[in-house]
Amino acid sequence: MPLLVMKFGGTSVADLDRIKNAAKKVQREVDRGYDVIVIVSAMSGKTNELVGWVEKTSPLFDAREYDAVVSSGENVTAGLMALTLQEMGVPARSWQGWQVPINTTAAHSAARFVDIPRDNLDQKFSEGFKVAVVAGFQGLAPDGRITTLGRGGSDTTAVAFAAAFGAERCDIYTDVDGVYTTDPRITSKARKLQKIAFEEMLELASLGAKVLQTRSVELAMRYKVRLRVLSSFEDTDENSGTLICDEDEIMESKVVNGVASSREEAKITLVTVEDRPGISAGIFAPLAEAGVNVDMIVQNISEKNFEHHQGSVTDMTFSVPINQVERAKRAMEEARAAGTIAYDELIVDTEVAKVSVVGIGMRSAAGVAARMFKALADENINIKVIATSEIKISVLIDRKYMELAVQALHDAFGLEAA
Amino acid sequence: MPLLVMKFGGTSVADLDRIKNAAKKVQREVDRGYDVIVIVSAMSGKTNELVGWVEKTSPLFDAREYDAVVSSGENVTAGLMALTLQEMGVPARSWQGWQVPINTTAAHSAARFVDIPRDNLDQKFSEGFKVAVVAGFQGLAPDGRITTLGRGGSDTTAVAFAAAFGAERCDIYTDVDGVYTTDPRITSKARKLQKIAFEEMLELASLGAKVLQTRSVELAMRYKVRLRVLSSFEDTDENSGTLICDEDEIMESKVVNGVASSREEAKITLVTVEDRPGISAGIFAPLAEAGVNVDMIVQNISEKNFEHHQGSVTDMTFSVPINQVERAKRAMEEARAAGTIAYDELIVDTEVAKVSVVGIGMRSAAGVAARMFKALADENINIKVIATSEIKISVLIDRKYMELAVQALHDAFGLEAA
Repeated sequence: MPLLVMKFGGTSVADLDRIKNAAKKVQREVDRGYDVIVIVSAMSGKTNELVGWVEKTSPLFDAREYDAVVSSGENVTAGLMALTLQEMGVPARSWQGWQVPINTTAAHSAARFVDIPRDNLDQKFSEGFKVAVVAGFQGLAPDGRITTLGRGGSDTTAVAFAAAFGAERCDIYTDVDGVYTTDPRITSKARKLQKIAFEEMLELASLGAKVLQTRSVELAMRYKVRLRVLSSFEDTDENSGTLICDEDEIMESKVVNGVASSREEAKITLVTVEDRPGISAGIFAPLAEAGVNVDMIVQNISEKNFEHHQGSVTDMTFSVPINQVERAKRAMEEARAAGTIAYDELIVDTEVAKVSVVGIGMRSAAGVAARMFKALADENINIKVIATSEIKISVLIDRKYMELAVQALHDAFGLEAA
Repeated sequence: MPLLVMKFGGTSVADLDRIKNAAKKVQREVDRGYDVIVIVSAMSGKTNELVGWVEKTSPLFDAREYDAVVSSGENVTAGLMALTLQEMGVPARSWQGWQVPINTTAAHSAARFVDIPRDNLDQKFSEGFKVAVVAGFQGLAPDGRITTLGRGGSDTTAVAFAAAFGAERCDIYTDVDGVYTTDPRITSKARKLQKIAFEEMLELASLGAKVLQTRSVELAMRYKVRLRVLSSFEDTDENSGTLICDEDEIMESKVVNGVASSREEAKITLVTVEDRPGISAGIFAPLAEAGVNVDMIVQNISEKNFEHHQGSVTDMTFSVPINQVERAKRAMEEARAAGTIAYDELIVDTEVAKVSVVGIGMRSAAGVAARMFKALADENINIKVIATSEIKISVLIDRKYMELAVQALHDAFGLEAA
């Protein structure tokens, strides 16, 4: 029997009516001949309520107990979804993490999958059950305690089940109808993509396209799980939404498939850093220790007056999430006080934004950077920092030009046309 | 290490402040040298919310899924209680039913205990944990599904743990401060009992003293678990509340220890029933099949005119809960229509109340019934039906005299004085 995994997020199961709506989508797939594993989140708001109680009870909470409390929201939805399906005449059974079991590491609140034995669910399918409704976001530690998977855990649960059960596809039902070429709030020319490669989705997700958690896309890529993002709140069929798949499945790809943007960036420049071997480690090790996520890094080699500096010096510029600026400053000041690094001045610029073009076609196409820079130059937008990867080019620009830059690049790479 | 079981009901853990208040009572016992097993209910209102969702989703719900959903309330409280205790510096760990495991039958929503292996909790106690917080009301079926125990399940869980772990005592914290000689709303002379025997408590519980579920008292009696009922909302010490224990522990007992009353009664009389062997079964078998709980039964043998009846006839009177009157009438009428019984008329009297005196001392004391009937006669209260057991005498009277009867009996048996 072909098998599908269908995942419904918190807004898709927010109340009994929405659970019923989601159940109808499951029923349709059963009617089409699939066995289905449904992964559910907690009703929206429930997890936050539980987290609030835990944090109020114990600000430095024991993660084992946090997990035991917080995982209960998904258990409720799983049972209600199974009941709803039964009421529609679809044989369904709910599964909590420990019942499957979903074996994870013991890293409470941030557990990782170890394995998902198929025996118990396969047994139920063989008895005539058509749907297994699994509580997302949770698992079982080796010592028998409940774990949770951290942010985006239910998406990751869905992908892990699709991998373990060789599902034909993993459908992620959410409150958007797919992945777009860019943020539709910035330009109405944004177009929904029919297909996108895993690598592209990863770059878009980590750039702030909030559709899917990075971790679930990484897992899907590793196990070649075909992922589909589609809307819970619209009539959907087998062509709805956006398919995230291996690039082999994408016949013809544009050079650039998406323009991402983020205003949650800040630029930090260390002026006149002594340029000697190991100095980069001297800067970025303390930042990593302080939990700062450094993104783009640029080093401007600059020869200074020999009289001032007994050797060559450099400026070091990097970008960090805007809410980590203070932490980054403190880490740098402490490292300077401890004598592990030396610099004259630390300059923070919080009025920046990051704009990126992403596309697997870039690998084989030359001149993408040139086209990007020209499009920005035509709008008189100054580039402050550039970073490139195999399938992405990112620039840091003045924040006030962000929307303009996105529109210009969307036009320049012809993304409006399918 | 001596061990206590402490159980907190829904109103005692209704919010974070109340959980803290309950945790302080646990801490005090730990400070006094006990290991403690805490049994918690769901926050008050939570179970009803979950039951409401299940019933709205599926009126004829699958009990397996009902249990999976409804048990989640206790899991939340267990985790929050463990966190609260940890925050106070008391090493505590939460336990869901499947983790202990609490092995039960597969009778979903009305499961019964099979066994509670001690290994897992004992292991944690030996590691230095002082408190195990166990989610009440739930268990694990042989096939790995979650079960619930039905009404009063958390009290029963507490008693079962006390029996399994040889606890010194099982303290049931609730919203009343003990068991009284009678309902304090009927007479201010009602006195809190220091001790009461299991058998007496069983009679009082089944007569409508809502302090403890009958099942938990039965279990306590069977395993000789000393039960104490006391208030969550008052300062309590080792002498608070009422101890429910074996009669051997009660040095000197009055002949009567309590006066119970219930207005939820109705009297049904079948007039002119043919009196032949098997007729009682003919009446009460259909009632049992219809789920009617018959309480008191009286048969008035009466010789009637030979011309009217080819043999002797009788009247049969019995009492049922008032909300089962219609069901009882229907069962009788169907049995008559089917020809299995014959009677001239069925008379229902819903204006009755039951008043009982209860006391283990009755076994060895003569004249209790006579004292009771005299006290009622002195108030001109007419007795409609009488039923007796070894330690209880019950009468059915006009409902309007119920409070008067209770006060008269409370005085007659000298219950005001300790």
